[in-house]
Amino acid sequence: MKKNTIFYNAHHSPIGSFASFTLGYKGRNGGFGLELDKPADQDIYIGLESTDHSSYETLPFYEGIEDESARYDMDGDAIRKDIRLKNFEDSAIEREFQLGTDTWKAGDLTFSIYSPVRALPDPEGGNETDFIQSIIPAIYIDITVDNTKHAKKRQAFFGFSAGDSIAEFRNFNEVSQGRYTGVGQGRQMALLTKADNVLAANDFTIEKLLTETRKENYTFGLGNVSAMIMDIMPGEKKTFKFVACFYRDGYVTTALDTKYYYRKYFSNIEAVGEYALENYDLLRQECQNANKLIQGEHLSDDQKFMMIHSIRSYYGSTEFLELEGQPFWIVNEGEYRMMNTFDLMVDQLFFEIKMNPWTVKNELNMFVKRYSYVDKVNFPGDSELYEGGISFTHDMGVGNSLSRPGYSAYERFGLTSCFSHMTHEQLVNWVCCASVYVEQTNDVQWLKKQSQVFIDCLKSMINRDHPQAKNRNGIMSLDSSRVMGGSEITTYDSLDESLGQARGNVYLATKSWAAYVALEKILIELQELKYAEQAKNQAILCANTIAKNMTEEGYIPAIFEEGNRSRIIPAIEGLVFPLYTGTPKALDPEGQYGPMIQALQKHLHTVLVEGTCLFADGGWKLSSTSDNSWLSKIYLCQFVARKVLKLEWNELARRADKAHVRWLLHPKESYHCWSDQMMSGLAVGSKYYPRGVTSILWLDE
Amino acid sequence: MKKNTIFYNAHHSPIGSFASFTLGYKGRNGGFGLELDKPADQDIYIGLESTDHSSYETLPFYEGIEDESARYDMDGDAIRKDIRLKNFEDSAIEREFQLGTDTWKAGDLTFSIYSPVRALPDPEGGNETDFIQSIIPAIYIDITVDNTKHAKKRQAFFGFSAGDSIAEFRNFNEVSQGRYTGVGQGRQMALLTKADNVLAANDFTIEKLLTETRKENYTFGLGNVSAMIMDIMPGEKKTFKFVACFYRDGYVTTALDTKYYYRKYFSNIEAVGEYALENYDLLRQECQNANKLIQGEHLSDDQKFMMIHSIRSYYGSTEFLELEGQPFWIVNEGEYRMMNTFDLMVDQLFFEIKMNPWTVKNELNMFVKRYSYVDKVNFPGDSELYEGGISFTHDMGVGNSLSRPGYSAYERFGLTSCFSHMTHEQLVNWVCCASVYVEQTNDVQWLKKQSQVFIDCLKSMINRDHPQAKNRNGIMSLDSSRVMGGSEITTYDSLDESLGQARGNVYLATKSWAAYVALEKILIELQELKYAEQAKNQAILCANTIAKNMTEEGYIPAIFEEGNRSRIIPAIEGLVFPLYTGTPKALDPEGQYGPMIQALQKHLHTVLVEGTCLFADGGWKLSSTSDNSWLSKIYLCQFVARKVLKLEWNELARRADKAHVRWLLHPKESYHCWSDQMMSGLAVGSKYYPRGVTSILWLDE
Repeated sequence: MKKNTIFYNAHHSPIGSFASFTLGYKGRNGGFGLELDKPADQDIYIGLESTDHSSYETLPFYEGIEDESARYDMDGDAIRKDIRLKNFEDSAIEREFQLGTDTWKAGDLTFSIYSPVRALPDPEGGNETDFIQSIIPAIYIDITVDNTKHAKKRQAFFGFSAGDSIAEFRNFNEVSQGRYTGVGQGRQMALLTKADNVLAANDFTIEKLLTETRKENYTFGLGNVSAMIMDIMPGEKKTFKFVACFYRDGYVTTALDTKYYYRKYFSNIEAVGEYALENYDLLRQECQNANKLIQGEHLSDDQKFMMIHSIRSYYGSTEFLELEGQPFWIVNEGEYRMMNTFDLMVDQLFFEIKMNPWTVKNELNMFVKRYSYVDKVNFPGDSELYEGGISFTHDMGVGNSLSRPGYSAYERFGLTSCFSHMTHEQLVNWVCCASVYVEQTNDVQWLKKQSQVFIDCLKSMINRDHPQAKNRNGIMSLDSSRVMGGSEITTYDSLDESLGQARGNVYLATKSWAAYVALEKILIELQELKYAEQAKNQAILCANTIAKNMTEEGYIPAIFEEGNRSRIIPAIEGLVFPLYTGTPKALDPEGQYGPMIQALQKHLHTVLVEGTCLFADGGWKLSSTSDNSWLSKIYLCQFVARKVLKLEWNELARRADKAHVRWLLHPKESYHCWSDQMMSGLAVGSKYYPRGVTSILWLDE
Repeated sequence: MKKNTIFYNAHHSPIGSFASFTLGYKGRNGGFGLELDKPADQDIYIGLESTDHSSYETLPFYEGIEDESARYDMDGDAIRKDIRLKNFEDSAIEREFQLGTDTWKAGDLTFSIYSPVRALPDPEGGNETDFIQSIIPAIYIDITVDNTKHAKKRQAFFGFSAGDSIAEFRNFNEVSQGRYTGVGQGRQMALLTKADNVLAANDFTIEKLLTETRKENYTFGLGNVSAMIMDIMPGEKKTFKFVACFYRDGYVTTALDTKYYYRKYFSNIEAVGEYALENYDLLRQECQNANKLIQGEHLSDDQKFMMIHSIRSYYGSTEFLELEGQPFWIVNEGEYRMMNTFDLMVDQLFFEIKMNPWTVKNELNMFVKRYSYVDKVNFPGDSELYEGGISFTHDMGVGNSLSRPGYSAYERFGLTSCFSHMTHEQLVNWVCCASVYVEQTNDVQWLKKQSQVFIDCLKSMINRDHPQAKNRNGIMSLDSSRVMGGSEITTYDSLDESLGQARGNVYLATKSWAAYVALEKILIELQELKYAEQAKNQAILCANTIAKNMTEEGYIPAIFEEGNRSRIIPAIEGLVFPLYTGTPKALDPEGQYGPMIQALQKHLHTVLVEGTCLFADGGWKLSSTSDNSWLSKIYLCQFVARKVLKLEWNELARRADKAHVRWLLHPKESYHCWSDQMMSGLAVGSKYYPRGVTSILWLDE
């Protein structure tokens, strides 16, 4: 695949440790980050002595830092040894970017990073060794130097600058007692090896460190650069194996006392490091095996790239905690760090269901237990209150600050746009996630425990349609009392009303329809036939309402209100769910909901034209009235378009993927790894983001 | 006292929690910092609604922040409510800066910060309540609003922006269950109150927060500003009491597993807050009582100011830990954060001996146990090694990264200046500190336990004089083998050789003499009469060497080497110790060491002239050959000059204090609270520094 560049940042993360070794974008723009909303912005020094020994050739991941020894030595001369670091030519550098491996080659140097993508076993009942090896907060790095054609010893190095962290550098020589060598920052980060001919070193700058003639000074405690210095003998080809470990001690979140789950198995970062080093080959192999996950002849290189990139970004946001001895799974919201944002969870659902469905259950349980609420509802502009029902919060807090029970960090009162409540959306999201979980796992025990919640959700949805049965049309007409005279929004909070307004929205309508269809099946299984019947009726009403809003121009308007002419791709989004809730028949164009399916098919073909829902570059434009388009949702809708609505995947369509890749590889914005919100192709929000794992659906085509 | 400005940063710190609410310098330059090497750089919002209700009048401690809601809401309009914050006129603001209290008054608003300065009881055997109240990681703040002349309700606020910390804001409503109200960041900082009519609030900007009409939105979880919003009723004068708490969970240091000592009594920040609120009046009173410590008719306002400022900076660097159940007292080195730097400890000694002498013992024990070593010695330029002996490391690590046994973070090998070893200096420092501790506490038990260390120190000092007894002259002539062919330095590491070179240095010579004098007394007490005699002989040799180096021009050169003409004030520094080691007779100009005392007296009068050891502004210049002068050492030498050498304290002398105050209140550098290294009066290093507590000696005049 030809891409703009190979120099884009990507995550290399353990599973569930909310940590990332981000690397790939040039300059001081990567590094070892813990719980951050962006890359750690450290210099990463990876280099090899040139064959003429006049300089060191480096990968371009640093700017170099000021020599802070001047802060200590006022009268001293600035000492700058005559040492040259120079980057390899761009053209001399190759990158092979896979799901579990990311390899850089330049000259005689090969630098590979291995990070896990693997099913995380259920903490209750899975294989313990597998479990421990899935959650160990470490990644694996190796550096191979080919000195076979050279008759002199050469030096290589792998190091980093301090970045913003206030944790000081350390040397592990004392605690390792010779079992390994390493450097680190505080108790939170370590870079360790058992290889021979490697020394851990610390100094004010990499240049000082490389020109230090007394090895005794490698143990210097001050300065802003730590590095591992490797000697490669004449004629030797050698691979040095490193583990990069992360650790956070003590309680992690506020309001509730949680710890990282890995603390059950590793008492400190040294324990992580020793385990990772001892099991290096096995753990590295597991990372290599992950590459096989992304395969299929139907997948283009563009698609594979986006799948890999988005899955990596997802893991960088995962945080696996322990609360009162029980697992507490959290996916943080990228640059925003909101915790378990429900309208992201419903998109990440397909990935989690495939990899570790128990995390879906875990999240759903927490939403029921702590993050549900019961409201009243009212018609717009009318203060009279009607029965509402159960719904769920937008999120569970932000940046380790858990929000209080029944409330999110995000939702405010009295608004009509961004930061308003998403009551109906999150209600539907719970139903969709829970139904997919039950269908995909056949976890009957859980289903039965949740029967009342399913019934309450149905009632709550119906109450938001209309207080009187006879006036119901299957879609949302009343807002939650929590908006206090404002109006509810959808997950598309930063778009215009075509996608941002919840009431009368075709996106939410289709999704509601899917929820009703799923509820019908679930309620039959629960032998709640009366409620199943209600669900079915609502599904029919909803489908009819959607279908009958078809316009003469062949599209369904975004909002079912007078004069709305916005056209949106996510009208079709909800059609994904019947494929995973065991109700695929509902998607039959000749079936019960055929008119709606056909209408949506027609809608899609009508809107998917340049100037409406295609950008000039061929990329998908979610709404005709906004230039803000979200890749996670595009991926999902692409799947629905092909799988359900039989959209032909021709050259025009493949042009879309090329555009989307180009957006991600933007010269500036590719600093943020995978990003979601693209304004005319430029990442403007939702950066460093986990949501793109909707791309996993492509495996099911 | 007239000062350049009232707008300088000062520490407001609990004891031993390595935390500071730094405030006073205008702009975004103060805030709540934990374990930092500089102020937290938060906006601090303190304001009161104006009487015409058109604006809020504020203290000038913020810049205001960008409205980050734009990061979430791409299509949204930038909403900026029409609200005006304006600073009080500088001339309308008063500050009363005392040791335990710091009070700002402007208009109807009074803002007071209370921080502890109190004797910290010995953890083994002190009063437990007193102990807990001494180490509780909290400070106390009250805000009084006088609305007696106004017939309408007014709003006041106290808030802060997030700064660099990645810890998210939180609201304490859930955990407090109505017992108190508050905001905080993560598990590490909290601002709490029990007052009525105060609400905790959070938003993207202070302006949004102040114009929020729905109180429900105060619980918003996102944004970069937290504040406490107070309502003051018509005709009311009300004081709102706040506690600001700090906390760090888990293990703190690397290499050894330590925790903050306060964790024994407070399981989390909520527990700190509840205790501080419950005992508010008592704890605030203790802070007020501390103001009485700085009194004495002989003290000028300039002196009092410097004492207050330096003591506050000392506490900001204190870190009281627990290691395997035992207390571990650490003073960090300001902006450098090196831990228990020995050559700072010897200066801070006089303060600690007065306040809590057990901390001196604690530090000395750790130096013996983990941070001592035995070396060989050699003459400069000669590789032949002779017996050396025991000495101690420069420090115990940096920024919570403990260095390995027997080695500091700071010291390198093979150097002749900054970052070289301070073997002789730290050896002398142990003797001086230990002797002062024994004399001031009469801790005979400890003395006996350390008898071998005292003897080893004597031997080690003698071995550094000359291998052959007959060739000894009482001063250092051999360098440690650890410098590997370089040469040892002194604490004055960043000055030229006049103070920076250890060998043959008059500063170190006088201090060595004081150590020998102290050792003589100690060894007599230990009934080690042979060693006592050796110590006495060395003291005599040393004093003679110093005296005989007097030049015709009436000064003693800094280095006893051919051609050295540097003149330094710290030649007299060591004379402080006999006052505190129970050997004041040694200072008698007519006594045994009279010739040296007289020589140093003459030396002082000779050098203390403008162009030699006085700057043009009257400030003291430690060395005639360097413009780098250190306030901590100036304070100490001022004390010696007056107390021992009977320097008259005339107007010329008082001019020096005025200059030193002016240095500290530099328009730019006063950001760093108290700083030590002044290059021609400009702070260039050792900023945010604890060492200035040498000023405590002034109380003893």
